[in-house]
Amino acid sequence: MTRIAPAGPRTHKKQIVLAHGGGGQLTDELLDTIIRPRFGNTTLDAMGDSALLEIGAGRVAFTTDTYVVRPLEFPGGDIGRLAVCGTVNDLAVSGAEPRWLSLALILEEGVAIATLERVLDSARGAAEEAGVQIVTGDTKVVARGQADGVYINTAGVGVVRAGVDLAPEHARPGDAVLLSGTIADHGMAVMLQRQDTAGVRSNLASDVAPINGLARALMDAAPGVRFMRDPTRGGLAGVLADLAERSGRRVSVDETAIPMRRETLYAAEMLGIDPLDVANEGKLVAVVPPGEARSALDAVRAHERGREAAIIGHVGEEADGLCELVTDVGGRRVLLKPYGEELPRIC
Amino acid sequence: MTRIAPAGPRTHKKQIVLAHGGGGQLTDELLDTIIRPRFGNTTLDAMGDSALLEIGAGRVAFTTDTYVVRPLEFPGGDIGRLAVCGTVNDLAVSGAEPRWLSLALILEEGVAIATLERVLDSARGAAEEAGVQIVTGDTKVVARGQADGVYINTAGVGVVRAGVDLAPEHARPGDAVLLSGTIADHGMAVMLQRQDTAGVRSNLASDVAPINGLARALMDAAPGVRFMRDPTRGGLAGVLADLAERSGRRVSVDETAIPMRRETLYAAEMLGIDPLDVANEGKLVAVVPPGEARSALDAVRAHERGREAAIIGHVGEEADGLCELVTDVGGRRVLLKPYGEELPRIC
Repeated sequence: MTRIAPAGPRTHKKQIVLAHGGGGQLTDELLDTIIRPRFGNTTLDAMGDSALLEIGAGRVAFTTDTYVVRPLEFPGGDIGRLAVCGTVNDLAVSGAEPRWLSLALILEEGVAIATLERVLDSARGAAEEAGVQIVTGDTKVVARGQADGVYINTAGVGVVRAGVDLAPEHARPGDAVLLSGTIADHGMAVMLQRQDTAGVRSNLASDVAPINGLARALMDAAPGVRFMRDPTRGGLAGVLADLAERSGRRVSVDETAIPMRRETLYAAEMLGIDPLDVANEGKLVAVVPPGEARSALDAVRAHERGREAAIIGHVGEEADGLCELVTDVGGRRVLLKPYGEELPRIC
Repeated sequence: MTRIAPAGPRTHKKQIVLAHGGGGQLTDELLDTIIRPRFGNTTLDAMGDSALLEIGAGRVAFTTDTYVVRPLEFPGGDIGRLAVCGTVNDLAVSGAEPRWLSLALILEEGVAIATLERVLDSARGAAEEAGVQIVTGDTKVVARGQADGVYINTAGVGVVRAGVDLAPEHARPGDAVLLSGTIADHGMAVMLQRQDTAGVRSNLASDVAPINGLARALMDAAPGVRFMRDPTRGGLAGVLADLAERSGRRVSVDETAIPMRRETLYAAEMLGIDPLDVANEGKLVAVVPPGEARSALDAVRAHERGREAAIIGHVGEEADGLCELVTDVGGRRVLLKPYGEELPRIC
């Protein structure tokens, strides 16, 4: 029963095999050569069962999201960048400064190590951009046909800014609704990669980016900010319908004020999709008191990710909890949260 | 372009469909009727983008794990219980009191809602048992053949006990190695469900359980504890080999002192598997200074999950970083970390 170590130098495999997930030497090899070097920091390198974080007294924000986007790589980003930005952004719109992330991989047997490396490089790049550390992680491998390449879960911990208390219920009549830039770029870029759109050339790229800098600038300029959210799954329509419902107020939005790229609009029309329902991954919606709307807009526009920001609507007196869209021809319609999503696995 | 809400009362579907993951009304329905009621607490009910936690000054432990166990339900537990206990236990062996968990689901289209409900009930039961709250979550749905039923990621946040600083590097010559109970029960119970073992009857059940109470009792009785770990993937062999390697000391273990159920041993022999390599999900390995070994053992044995605890070995003077197993016939062999795992998806 004496155990013999495998002879010779360890093969650096080109593809993920099931044993990479077994918790043995091959898992160590994957962690030591492919994963950990990319995210090296003293907390992660301690390789304990948990990361140990030094947090001062105060409120802490904690969030999680799993990313199953298909394809793994798309114009403007990939699942690694998305997984970091998505969780950073959920913390940021909670009024927290994102600090620490976990990164948990589900790998399908047969995934090319080169693909995994690109995805991890891009996760690292996004983490650097956002100023967060990846401090703990996990890797599981499942057999072919039991996943679709790579799924990533990230959870995140951030420190909530003192005095900040954000919730859709805090919206008051007269408040302005601010949007940090063009909508639907992420979802449409991913969909165009997936649909059979032979012959259609497009410059569309996902907007996937960390928005914590944007949120920080906005909170500095508008300390009375009531509510922030990033319009991901469910799109801008989902956020606005939820804001109206939970505040109990009428939210009125001017369709012509919503920034949108021409090519995104064309792509949406071609596929018969309402861009208001489509996921964004680098945008911020904020509700600010009327007296701070101007300074908030200026601050967001001064940020490189907020050049096209606009005030797109306001919170009304009517206590009906509806979101009303005033269309470009002057019509009005009630914005509902989408029922499902037109296409799954957009994030 | 006026949107019409689906007519009539919402169907309570019997199976997961892709639109359950779309972030729209159907996602809300799943969250409101199936998921959130099971874990209701004011933090989760706030439904923000992040959970907001009140943490006093001090060190915080943060960890994550994804669970892909197959089958979803096995003797002694299921993936829901496993996902909560695994993360609770990673926090506990870091010297932290587990407090808050995230729970992120990847659901395969077609999964029965009834299965999901059982799994979630069992996650809730385990959370209650461990005294933790599930405060944030996420749900994604992928098409048939892109997952295998249900995958769950949990991340956890805990508060580190003041003065506790645990690491394998802290082990010193003379320290005792304590194990809280029988090994290999989880892995063998799951494997027996998977292997073609027609005709084999077994009473084997997984040991999946929260061990934070056990860790607390041990730290109370042995405040000088050097290191704790739960021997999951890679088994007891993985933990001991890692302890030896990272402490740089010889770790000697007496095979006859390792508690093991007879039926577990038989099952392992039948399948040709070394039980030392097999995953456990409710056990604790601890390294304690010699002067505290007796009180640590008494405290762990006094706990309902530690009745069969034993001192299984000690840390030696030799600075070779090897783990030596003294076998039942008096032979010696070097314990290596398993290369891969015999069978994937055990946790």
